[in-house]
Amino acid sequence: MTSLDDILKSRRDTRHFTADEVPDEVIQKALQAGHWAPSVGLTDATRYYLIKSSEVKTAIKNLFLEYNKKAEALTDNPEQKELYRSLKLEAIEEAPIGLIIAYDRSVLNQFTIGTVGSNEAVKFSSVCAAQNIWLSLTEQGYGMGWVSILNYYQFKKILDLPENIEPLGYFCIGKPATNYNNQPMLQQLHWKQKSETPICAEIQKVNESPVSEITTNFASKNKTETNFDRLLQEKIDSKTKPIGALGTLETLAFQIATVFETLTPKIINPNMVVFAADHGIANHGVSAYPQDVTRQMVNNFLDGGAAINVFCRQNNIQLSIVDAGVNYDFPTNAKLIDAKIAKGTQSFLHVPAMSQTELQLCFEKGKLIVEEIAKTGSNCIGFGEMGIGNTSTASVLMSLLTGFPIEECVGKGTGVVDEKLIQKQNLLKKAIENYSGQAELKEQLAFFGGFEIMQMASGMLTAFENKMLILVDGFICSTAFLIATKINPEIIKNAVFCHCSAENAHQKLLQYLNAKPILNLDLRLGEGTGCAIAFPILKSAEAFLNEMASFESAGVSRK
Amino acid sequence: MTSLDDILKSRRDTRHFTADEVPDEVIQKALQAGHWAPSVGLTDATRYYLIKSSEVKTAIKNLFLEYNKKAEALTDNPEQKELYRSLKLEAIEEAPIGLIIAYDRSVLNQFTIGTVGSNEAVKFSSVCAAQNIWLSLTEQGYGMGWVSILNYYQFKKILDLPENIEPLGYFCIGKPATNYNNQPMLQQLHWKQKSETPICAEIQKVNESPVSEITTNFASKNKTETNFDRLLQEKIDSKTKPIGALGTLETLAFQIATVFETLTPKIINPNMVVFAADHGIANHGVSAYPQDVTRQMVNNFLDGGAAINVFCRQNNIQLSIVDAGVNYDFPTNAKLIDAKIAKGTQSFLHVPAMSQTELQLCFEKGKLIVEEIAKTGSNCIGFGEMGIGNTSTASVLMSLLTGFPIEECVGKGTGVVDEKLIQKQNLLKKAIENYSGQAELKEQLAFFGGFEIMQMASGMLTAFENKMLILVDGFICSTAFLIATKINPEIIKNAVFCHCSAENAHQKLLQYLNAKPILNLDLRLGEGTGCAIAFPILKSAEAFLNEMASFESAGVSRK
Repeated sequence: MTSLDDILKSRRDTRHFTADEVPDEVIQKALQAGHWAPSVGLTDATRYYLIKSSEVKTAIKNLFLEYNKKAEALTDNPEQKELYRSLKLEAIEEAPIGLIIAYDRSVLNQFTIGTVGSNEAVKFSSVCAAQNIWLSLTEQGYGMGWVSILNYYQFKKILDLPENIEPLGYFCIGKPATNYNNQPMLQQLHWKQKSETPICAEIQKVNESPVSEITTNFASKNKTETNFDRLLQEKIDSKTKPIGALGTLETLAFQIATVFETLTPKIINPNMVVFAADHGIANHGVSAYPQDVTRQMVNNFLDGGAAINVFCRQNNIQLSIVDAGVNYDFPTNAKLIDAKIAKGTQSFLHVPAMSQTELQLCFEKGKLIVEEIAKTGSNCIGFGEMGIGNTSTASVLMSLLTGFPIEECVGKGTGVVDEKLIQKQNLLKKAIENYSGQAELKEQLAFFGGFEIMQMASGMLTAFENKMLILVDGFICSTAFLIATKINPEIIKNAVFCHCSAENAHQKLLQYLNAKPILNLDLRLGEGTGCAIAFPILKSAEAFLNEMASFESAGVSRK
Repeated sequence: MTSLDDILKSRRDTRHFTADEVPDEVIQKALQAGHWAPSVGLTDATRYYLIKSSEVKTAIKNLFLEYNKKAEALTDNPEQKELYRSLKLEAIEEAPIGLIIAYDRSVLNQFTIGTVGSNEAVKFSSVCAAQNIWLSLTEQGYGMGWVSILNYYQFKKILDLPENIEPLGYFCIGKPATNYNNQPMLQQLHWKQKSETPICAEIQKVNESPVSEITTNFASKNKTETNFDRLLQEKIDSKTKPIGALGTLETLAFQIATVFETLTPKIINPNMVVFAADHGIANHGVSAYPQDVTRQMVNNFLDGGAAINVFCRQNNIQLSIVDAGVNYDFPTNAKLIDAKIAKGTQSFLHVPAMSQTELQLCFEKGKLIVEEIAKTGSNCIGFGEMGIGNTSTASVLMSLLTGFPIEECVGKGTGVVDEKLIQKQNLLKKAIENYSGQAELKEQLAFFGGFEIMQMASGMLTAFENKMLILVDGFICSTAFLIATKINPEIIKNAVFCHCSAENAHQKLLQYLNAKPILNLDLRLGEGTGCAIAFPILKSAEAFLNEMASFESAGVSRK
């Protein structure tokens, strides 16, 4: 048999052998044929193992039997199962020679030419060697059968093959007892019919749905907003994850990119500003803590021992403490921003908490503080507060600005309506009833006050003007934000609501603002702690948008 | 040239062609040679596409150039890079004929003989065809060059190849301009030297090493000292904040301190382990993505481009990727932990997904992996997974182990929509009905399987034994945890449920486990992303317990 076509055509996957021995020269010649096969990057990764021991053959046969039973169970219908059972699919024990053709995948540990698209090229080289061996054996008058119905893990284990050696299967070699009437055995037995000719088509043109290039350079707002939004959404959807699978992180990433007006947004110099002030209403027993705790806590902030210090340190957030109006004279301390309006507000139970001038001063100071921070290049600012009695101030402001009855704006704390809560509700109700001023924003703000709340509201508006992300903390902070929205509703675009506190009134306020908070950890501490704890989630959103591979770059199938 | 050996020996991977045309008869004869190649189970899965259009060739050449640049960057040293640059590795535009040899993996949708051990046999048949074509062309005086340096995803896209058609590469065909002095071009250019002879060894005996049994009998330990609990709660309540004001953070701090058995707990060397494996059930259309995506995503993990890479980098978590049973041969790469049981499980629709031996192996491997991590001093481990089709596996296991009807345990998976959901439910319902085994844990686990799920369950049990914090991710991971609790209910003490996913079944499972998740961000990605994103919250809990001042130390009034 000398014609290549004759050899190619008569090569059979043989499962029936005679008892004839296979001379060593035949095997050597066949292995040499295998050695002439292609080898990607000239890695020479193909390895051969010969098996003559009947003990080894029996062990392999047992592996085959186990998986053949498994295969039998996988057949599509009873007739097929019956036919399958009748098929002889190996000759492991009868064939005089067993051969394992394997490849050493450790070659990939070094740079290997031709494997950057897919390292399967290494195993394909070994398959080519198998085909060469098959053809050589055929030419020499011998046959080979490829057994792949094996648990490869156990196969390697019983043969003690090293981890890096991957067998293509077990190959039975011997003198063929039949040529299956010049056709594949499975065709002779009517399992399937091989098609007459190869299936071939010509590709005449390139498919015109190219991968969209993502433009990352947006210098200004020249592009229309909708175009930016589309590109941004495309970028998010091109990441190697199902669409929407990162849930809230995707919404956040979209928002961050939109606020910073770039497809590659980076949060720079994040800042947390805690505004502290005292409240006249605290003298009416609305808080469990004495007013002096405001001062004590400011010192705790300055000493680095409060919760907000811990969380800002943890997450590399710059922390500033503002004296917006604490009832205490602090030393001229560089660590404290002095924006004191007065030593606490008046009690709004009878008189306005502050004057219109003081209110204007609050807005001025809040603006200046945030402008200074913006000048450092910061584009992300969190707002926190400290002020004994300020939940009462916030509750009244919320009720006035949303129209919700005061009962729904007062925190229930543990959920039990106790005497003290009723007392607080009645007090605040009375304060609202006593109010004889106009239903005009500035007048209401001055009357019910809160130096720290007003400075925060002003600071938020300034942050918006400076295209900064605005991190909103708990109930008091959200009330300051409510005030800011009444002045500029656009501000909502820049706001990240960091958490939903344990205060029922906060949940109600968030609903009113149509806000979806990031965390829900039953926090009720204030100080901006919710912002600082949630901050890594924002960083996660930023990071996935900037760092994750796209389907295209990673070569991952979209669907 | 008529001798087979001469043809085998003179076949070259050709990159230099003359301008001569290739007559149609030559191609037809070569394709016929390919058609005579073996075809596993007589599936006839090989497909051919011819390319003559210069427009198409240029588009493919551009793909090559892009990946060749990538390959260049991967070289091991500057000298190699220089040499690599000088190599001509393709002749896409010059060769008169382009051929794509591909296989149709949809043949696997039906029962296919010879693929139970590994369905790679299908592609191997096509590689044999490629080798036949190469030999035929060589005999006819022509040459071929195999180009595999391509982004296959984009390659398929520009050629508009259907999803089920998988190309082996691009083959350049023409009249060779050189025979490279009768040797591989890379040898002629001193890139590497091909070995003189094939590497062959004889295997003379069977390796004996039994697999150990799964231990399920854990003695329940005595309740820990209440004195420790009291001291710990006192420490938490002494911090400068109202009692309970840090909500979930306080619960977490209590748990962390209890697991580490110290009032000053520190999370050391946090690790994230992502277990990847393939699932036989994936062939039944339960996922929107092809099975190959598991492999693609593992490569994405190794390249650092997946979501879990980004979040682990962000939060300084050590990331390990485990091949628990992906249907692909990875290089022996130090970045991937090899714990492959087999190339994917079988489909539990008809047969057990894995054998009892394989199940035991999963438990052994999972244990070893976590023990190695514990040895590095790590006391905190997150579990993640990747495996196309694994929500189906998890749903069935959840239904069997909780008693909930399958309908309540099936989620939409990643990106599956309504009609498909019903289909998936029905399929899984049928699988459960078909199950004729006993209601015994080990039997159920082997039958419905999931190599990665079993390794995770075992890993979690090992983490518990090593007094580690166990971070539980989404639905699949929680199912692994469910299995672990069935073996040792005590494990719940060490578990931190990181998030509640968008999958309804996950919410139900968390309720069943009486678990309160930290985050609720509508994540549904897996990979352990929920753990990595939630990790800073754990750090916040640790930080406040260790770093916050007490009322006493800060001089703040308690009330």
